[in-house]
Amino acid sequence: MTYNVQIKVMPLKDLLDPQGKAVLGGLNNLGLGAVADVRVGKHITLQINAASEAEAREIAEEASKKLLANPVMEFYEIEMIQ
Amino acid sequence: MTYNVQIKVMPLKDLLDPQGKAVLGGLNNLGLGAVADVRVGKHITLQINAASEAEAREIAEEASKKLLANPVMEFYEIEMIQ
Repeated sequence: MTYNVQIKVMPLKDLLDPQGKAVLGGLNNLGLGAVADVRVGKHITLQINAASEAEAREIAEEASKKLLANPVMEFYEIEMIQ
Repeated sequence: MTYNVQIKVMPLKDLLDPQGKAVLGGLNNLGLGAVADVRVGKHITLQINAASEAEAREIAEEASKKLLANPVMEFYEIEMIQ
């Protein structure tokens, strides 16, 4: 069966996020001063062929660890899409 | 009050996603052949000062249209975080 999995990869909370700061500056220049903070990360959707939801989640976990997220700078969250 | 809003910006479904294809190739090379498709987009979290949740959502909508998403190539989804 094919499972859809979404993975959110974000910069660690304690680290500076230069891309987010740039977007924040851009939004404030556009008159959106109500925006106080921005952080930018990656959103990745995977289609995984697996026998069960648990197996699909395990594969997504392995993909995140091996390729998608850099644990020194980023954390990730995996969510199964129904 | 401060509201946390997350915005998902993904390449339109009908468009090629070269970054996703590259990640898919990488995962398959790593032995994760069960992954059949990958799409990569942006995940953006905003902190917005607003009087109500509706106002915060409106500001997020405006930010997405004006800066965060390119409607020719991308679609976006806004979600309020509790």
